[in-house]
Amino acid sequence: MRTLGILGGMGPAATADFYRKLIAATPARGDAEHLPVLIYGVPQIPDRSRAIEGGGASPAPALRRAARALAVGGAQAIVMPCNTAHHWHALVEQSARRPCLHIVDAVLAQLARCAPRARRIGLLATAGTLAADIYPARAAAAGLQWLAPVPEVQRGATAAAIAAVKAGDAAAARPLLRAAAEHLVECGAETLVAACTEVPLALDATDCTVPLIDSTAALAEHCVAWARRSAC
Amino acid sequence: MRTLGILGGMGPAATADFYRKLIAATPARGDAEHLPVLIYGVPQIPDRSRAIEGGGASPAPALRRAARALAVGGAQAIVMPCNTAHHWHALVEQSARRPCLHIVDAVLAQLARCAPRARRIGLLATAGTLAADIYPARAAAAGLQWLAPVPEVQRGATAAAIAAVKAGDAAAARPLLRAAAEHLVECGAETLVAACTEVPLALDATDCTVPLIDSTAALAEHCVAWARRSAC
Repeated sequence: MRTLGILGGMGPAATADFYRKLIAATPARGDAEHLPVLIYGVPQIPDRSRAIEGGGASPAPALRRAARALAVGGAQAIVMPCNTAHHWHALVEQSARRPCLHIVDAVLAQLARCAPRARRIGLLATAGTLAADIYPARAAAAGLQWLAPVPEVQRGATAAAIAAVKAGDAAAARPLLRAAAEHLVECGAETLVAACTEVPLALDATDCTVPLIDSTAALAEHCVAWARRSAC
Repeated sequence: MRTLGILGGMGPAATADFYRKLIAATPARGDAEHLPVLIYGVPQIPDRSRAIEGGGASPAPALRRAARALAVGGAQAIVMPCNTAHHWHALVEQSARRPCLHIVDAVLAQLARCAPRARRIGLLATAGTLAADIYPARAAAAGLQWLAPVPEVQRGATAAAIAAVKAGDAAAARPLLRAAAEHLVECGAETLVAACTEVPLALDATDCTVPLIDSTAALAEHCVAWARRSAC
């Protein structure tokens, strides 16, 4: 069976959540039917949003090293359970010389399955993911309209909630994310994407009045489909 | 910060649970204060219990390879979130040329903290962990009496429950583990140890009439203490 390389630690709880969802998405009757994984979980990789916004060290050297280490360790494909890190997707793919399964492709597949008629999609994402246009750029052909919260809500609710999850306080994050979700619905969002892998640790579908796509779970299913294809 | 090498996949859900508990046990205000980890999660490592009981391939070559890969990848210490794999503890330590933090040491530390007066300890463990005397051998100096279920209960309840968890059916495992726990209490156990890392995925302290030590959580706390010591 092919080994999946997981470039994680951004943040660590999101990586653990991804690993759990990968296992849950795998049809297996025992240990040996699960995917072999190699996880490089280094939370010291410089902050992605801060780098995109121009205020911090670049994570590029650390991502390059991690991608190479995963390839040397035997990974046949790479995934990053961090939306913002996808700003460096091409670099990771080149460094590993392996395909890097893209989280936006995974989310688009879920949108097509769960909300095929939705055209206006609200993003619960980091400032970096929004500033780098990670969703609109990758999904240009899909003809969707991507909505971000107004700056006060982005800073005061979404970004504050993500920081709370990273500090281990999901309970404090939940009401903030509910408010950001409600705001996006008021702006016209027909479906929401938890487009930061910290978000599903504090918000689930029962908190929202429109469908919520979990990018972590979407990426896990995308990986299981990759493993099935590669096994043929 | 020192990198922890996690030799996992035995089974995968137990490894993910360990990673989650390691993060929860770490006092951190953000990503960068968490431990860097390298996880080798290869569920194709041959079955440990079957090998100990003489009926299957040895996991030794796979464990040796994994331990070396973790050391080459930068791990400064190794842990195995699998009790039965500790039968090969010395081999892993020698292969990695790194300390391998022992799960029984972690459990003994928890017992000293949470149940200092308990002398008769019931084990919810695999057949391999019991047959290889992993707990009595490591804990000889502690003066404890280790109780195992009678063979019918071990096979029909504990082992069946562990297999159910490995097949993704924790709900089916729970009543079986409650029955095994109750049986051990009837045999005189004053405290129980979830001495297989699949067990805490289906049984918690509220299911038991005496204290229950979770070996996965104990190992996570042991690793956080190691990281704190190594940082000094």
